[in-house]
Amino acid sequence: MDFSPSERDAVYRAIRERRDVRSDFLMDPIPDDVLGRILSAAHQAPSVGLMQPWDFLIVKDQNARERIKQHVDEAKQRSNIYEGDRRDLYSSLKLDGIVDSALNICVTCDGERSRGHGLGRRTDPAVASYSTACAVQNLWLAARVEGVGVGWVSILEPEKVKEILSIPNQLRLVAYLCVGYVRQFRERPELEQAGWESRSPLMESVHFERWGNRLEVGPGNPA
Amino acid sequence: MDFSPSERDAVYRAIRERRDVRSDFLMDPIPDDVLGRILSAAHQAPSVGLMQPWDFLIVKDQNARERIKQHVDEAKQRSNIYEGDRRDLYSSLKLDGIVDSALNICVTCDGERSRGHGLGRRTDPAVASYSTACAVQNLWLAARVEGVGVGWVSILEPEKVKEILSIPNQLRLVAYLCVGYVRQFRERPELEQAGWESRSPLMESVHFERWGNRLEVGPGNPA
Repeated sequence: MDFSPSERDAVYRAIRERRDVRSDFLMDPIPDDVLGRILSAAHQAPSVGLMQPWDFLIVKDQNARERIKQHVDEAKQRSNIYEGDRRDLYSSLKLDGIVDSALNICVTCDGERSRGHGLGRRTDPAVASYSTACAVQNLWLAARVEGVGVGWVSILEPEKVKEILSIPNQLRLVAYLCVGYVRQFRERPELEQAGWESRSPLMESVHFERWGNRLEVGPGNPA
Repeated sequence: MDFSPSERDAVYRAIRERRDVRSDFLMDPIPDDVLGRILSAAHQAPSVGLMQPWDFLIVKDQNARERIKQHVDEAKQRSNIYEGDRRDLYSSLKLDGIVDSALNICVTCDGERSRGHGLGRRTDPAVASYSTACAVQNLWLAARVEGVGVGWVSILEPEKVKEILSIPNQLRLVAYLCVGYVRQFRERPELEQAGWESRSPLMESVHFERWGNRLEVGPGNPA
């Protein structure tokens, strides 16, 4: 059945107003039914061969979070490859809400899972992790409509975090997410507001028929 | 601002009714404004350091599509590792709409892009491709609310398809998508209807505090 104009607008609004939250978390607990709906949305993601390669480890325990936070702080410092003003800017960025959000969700991918009977993942084994990233995006949009913020922490050594959380060796850590209610959903991304980077126009990323061909751009074409 | 209950429902509906389309494509052209909205949704995906590592190559040319289709057919045949009934079932599956959809979109990832100044991608270089997969999921949901179907073709050698489309060597092919209006959005995934695999319950994928710990499951917990 078709989506009505207002249903369409709601989906576009969720996509547009989703934010990668770092600074604005509150510690208020997330009710189980809300968390259930968010995880259920993630679990409805597309997956290669219907293998559903993801798992969601919900971490509330502050001891575990403190250990991960310490590791992330060290990784952030080690990754300061910048000079001058950008070095100071980098140091000033708050990049995670690990200990000051309601909970964390570690999302893993089991690329060897027998579910799906191997369909579609023989030519490029990375596709299972792409399915898992699609699940994260579903989770993120569902959280947004529930008024819950999500921040994806990528400055971490996956193997180190797996060790802290006793995650089996053969799994790949795809995403480490901080999840919680927020003070605000900002109008612009935090990194843009901080002056780190600004968003590019869509048309810089679109090509027609051949790589680099922008000739079809004009009135009536996607812009 | 909060999402209203009906806005929330619309987003959950899009997530629930999104399908990976293989058999149900129509060739009707997609108007430029519709395609523009779908690509714009993709371009609003989260990305590590705001690097927006993705590009979208729109392929309508049937010559290029025929070449890719031929490669995919060969790859599908080579990937038939099955025996008995499942071998026949595999052979009978229609796995792509490359030549019988309105258009194809090849989604690539430039992991070395200077945008984002390297933020967040030093500890795990795969994160740029996860951002790109999130963009695909946005595209997929936007297409659904526009009444447009998407099918992700993963049985292909990425390097071979890059060669056919003259995509620069250093880019990673993340997704090859068939995109078009459809006869129907099925109630259940095609692979489930065909008896290839069925979807698992959410709780098989959820762990609390420690890997494998399901103890918190019960009334009131996410199910």
